[in-house]
Amino acid sequence: MNYGTVVRVLGNLLIIEAIGMIPALAISVFFREHDAKAFIESIFAVLLIGYTMSLAPKSKNKIKAKEGLIIVSLGWLLVSFFGAFPFVLSGSIPSFIDAFFETVSGFTTTGATIIDDIEVLPRGILFWRSFTHWIGGMGILVFTVAILPAMGVGSFQIFKAESPGPVADKIVPRIKDTAKLLYVTYVGITLTEIVLLIFGGMSVYEAMLHTFGTVGTGGFSTRNASIGAFNSVYIHVVIGVFMILSGINFSLYYELYKGKWRDVFKNEELRLYLSVIGTSVLLITLNIYKSVYGNIFESLRHAFFQVSSIITTTGYATANFDEWGSFSKGILYLLMFVGGCAGSTGGGMKNIRILILLKLIKREASKILHPRAVIPIRVGGRTIPPDMLAGIASFFALYMLIFALGTIVVSLEGISMVSASSAVAATLGNIGPGFEFIGPSRTFSQFSQPIKVLLSLFMLMGRLELFTVLVLLSPRFWRDEIYS
Amino acid sequence: MNYGTVVRVLGNLLIIEAIGMIPALAISVFFREHDAKAFIESIFAVLLIGYTMSLAPKSKNKIKAKEGLIIVSLGWLLVSFFGAFPFVLSGSIPSFIDAFFETVSGFTTTGATIIDDIEVLPRGILFWRSFTHWIGGMGILVFTVAILPAMGVGSFQIFKAESPGPVADKIVPRIKDTAKLLYVTYVGITLTEIVLLIFGGMSVYEAMLHTFGTVGTGGFSTRNASIGAFNSVYIHVVIGVFMILSGINFSLYYELYKGKWRDVFKNEELRLYLSVIGTSVLLITLNIYKSVYGNIFESLRHAFFQVSSIITTTGYATANFDEWGSFSKGILYLLMFVGGCAGSTGGGMKNIRILILLKLIKREASKILHPRAVIPIRVGGRTIPPDMLAGIASFFALYMLIFALGTIVVSLEGISMVSASSAVAATLGNIGPGFEFIGPSRTFSQFSQPIKVLLSLFMLMGRLELFTVLVLLSPRFWRDEIYS
Repeated sequence: MNYGTVVRVLGNLLIIEAIGMIPALAISVFFREHDAKAFIESIFAVLLIGYTMSLAPKSKNKIKAKEGLIIVSLGWLLVSFFGAFPFVLSGSIPSFIDAFFETVSGFTTTGATIIDDIEVLPRGILFWRSFTHWIGGMGILVFTVAILPAMGVGSFQIFKAESPGPVADKIVPRIKDTAKLLYVTYVGITLTEIVLLIFGGMSVYEAMLHTFGTVGTGGFSTRNASIGAFNSVYIHVVIGVFMILSGINFSLYYELYKGKWRDVFKNEELRLYLSVIGTSVLLITLNIYKSVYGNIFESLRHAFFQVSSIITTTGYATANFDEWGSFSKGILYLLMFVGGCAGSTGGGMKNIRILILLKLIKREASKILHPRAVIPIRVGGRTIPPDMLAGIASFFALYMLIFALGTIVVSLEGISMVSASSAVAATLGNIGPGFEFIGPSRTFSQFSQPIKVLLSLFMLMGRLELFTVLVLLSPRFWRDEIYS
Repeated sequence: MNYGTVVRVLGNLLIIEAIGMIPALAISVFFREHDAKAFIESIFAVLLIGYTMSLAPKSKNKIKAKEGLIIVSLGWLLVSFFGAFPFVLSGSIPSFIDAFFETVSGFTTTGATIIDDIEVLPRGILFWRSFTHWIGGMGILVFTVAILPAMGVGSFQIFKAESPGPVADKIVPRIKDTAKLLYVTYVGITLTEIVLLIFGGMSVYEAMLHTFGTVGTGGFSTRNASIGAFNSVYIHVVIGVFMILSGINFSLYYELYKGKWRDVFKNEELRLYLSVIGTSVLLITLNIYKSVYGNIFESLRHAFFQVSSIITTTGYATANFDEWGSFSKGILYLLMFVGGCAGSTGGGMKNIRILILLKLIKREASKILHPRAVIPIRVGGRTIPPDMLAGIASFFALYMLIFALGTIVVSLEGISMVSASSAVAATLGNIGPGFEFIGPSRTFSQFSQPIKVLLSLFMLMGRLELFTVLVLLSPRFWRDEIYS
């Protein structure tokens, strides 16, 4: 094991985090609020620790899969740990576990909150809270689109438009190239949404924060009533559309830029994603029109916003969807598992996996009658190799296993089955709100400390594609020298 | 397509069904109840239709997969259709849809009932109702242990101790041999339980009916309070143990008979099944001891019975488990998906599939670090071929898909998400009762007619391993001449 490199890279990550706190400090100075001191202390502490770690001895060995996994998982954990400092030091969130939960929720772009009254908090703190979504969203794009495929790990090659193949020598330049394209797209979408929201009458400050929450598919708001606090169809539509845009594979934007409209239009994952959104909006609109609103326009508007928010795993709300009928809630619950597209900032299981599982079912049905037929599963003209199929099947099985066992453990809180299960689905899928005990008008504050830690772990596992964290939890990983 | 053969075989099936109604007629004559007439009419009608169908022209062509699937699926459907006659003709269940639901529930060994007051019905009718469990249990054993593996269909080879391989010529003798062993074992277990229950003070009549419900893992009782009506620890333990025995792969009893104790003890599926039962009983006992009963013996007794009843997909109850805490209910809910062992009368997904999915997860975790390693998945010393893995993965995905979409449709009844989802889980897994709206103290009578038909379809799909019914629902199956 190459401990020196691991420590050095993690140190650099903390230095970047400290720099990331500077805009929040600026906001807090600008509004002359009391939290500036907390940011100065946090920046100083994180910078010091990060700098010290970055002095760890260099090694000539290349980073291997083992180090890569440790860096990514511990990186997300460390950044969340230190990112909690401003919340605690400013007194905004007195309990460290609570602050840690909130920061994990931010960086994993989950958006589950333990803050019961958001509106009393200083603006610098809220800026930092939402900014973690934006940084986390960027991080996850680089992780899934650039790092994982380049390492040739697991079944992640599928997430990239071009299949790279694991050529170790070119890892770093390829990651850098891909990452640069992602930065440009991500920043471009961010700026566009901020401008559109300001145009709709939002303050510059709130436009920025809600954009961070949208493009990172996070869901932290500045208002207790979430987006419902803004009584503007325009704002609801802008955020609704940008959530959907942020749930699309970002490499498709590059295809668009290169003028390959037809390839984008034919993308099977995108088609499934948009079909699921369309069908869900239609069904929910009809259902809540009949049972809740009695106004087709208002029903469509809330249905569109909520479907967009849940399938992209953002978690914003314009209405208390927990009061809708079981039919609409059932659809939203299902969307929590579908999630966004691979290579987006969205969480959940990802549409590409659902697509491949559906094709697997279809093939199996044919095989009942033609037991010896060899029928390849193809996506976008490429055959999915058996290894990748096994990978996707195990991901699905593991997702369901964590969901089931997690629900049973969380039930120990004495809450209803729907509350417990949706708390697990909402954290594992990086969504945010769930149903009943953690419905959109409520928060995660009532959970006990151990359950908050467990749910934080689920957020990390969900964000890092489960297996990345799972192998780190196995004692064999640390013992077994074959791995290093 | 070989229509003549299909019609002839189905006709013979109906003749057998008519014969199967004779014991119920005898009971009704014996107790001098008014339902004897209904049985005579039903037997006559079914016999006539069956005999007419059995005259269909013979064909020299062998039965192929397509005909096999039609016979099995239509067979279950037809037998349920005609099996509903005595209920309707005797006036016990006036609505034909209700009677059909009850009969499907019987033959699929589900045990979901639409009868709100069982105790007022005549004994001949109740005998027939429970006897459908016994016939259905036998049918499913022959189907999964003898017919499916012999046809080489899907991933069913795994369910048999020896791997037969699809040698068409030997299909019929092999099916007959295996079926004979199953009959003997099944009848042996049945007689033993009847004797033990009579020994415990049950009347011969009730001992028989509850044994049919146990060994078929069905769950129909003669009492509104199910097994809870018998205030006897002995009876609870006997039925609890026999439910577990009925959830074990029946070919293991043959191994036992041949003296291969070690093979049985080492059987991985059996070990998983017993471990899941042990762990669940322990956890639920502790939970309900604290929150409900305050008496460790009573807690253990109800926990054991309920775990045994749910994992084997029987559905009997000694307590209203719907009033237990979410923790215990969550475990029971999970067990609804696990189900019994392959080659037993139990439903659900079956332990062997769970076992293989767990091994798939474990392998994928190793592969994260060794992307190019080839790690076979082995059960009982045999390597599971990739095709079978894909089959199991698609089964799991399809099961979850039907569960999710089914829940959304059933939600249209205006019931809670837990009610709707557990109604689907309880019918698809052939369990019987679920939670809330269909908890153990309630029935399925309040559902609308279309939903009762849908739930009947789920019972059939679950019982026939999903794909068997799925391919029949596809228009291509009927159009496509390649198949025939």
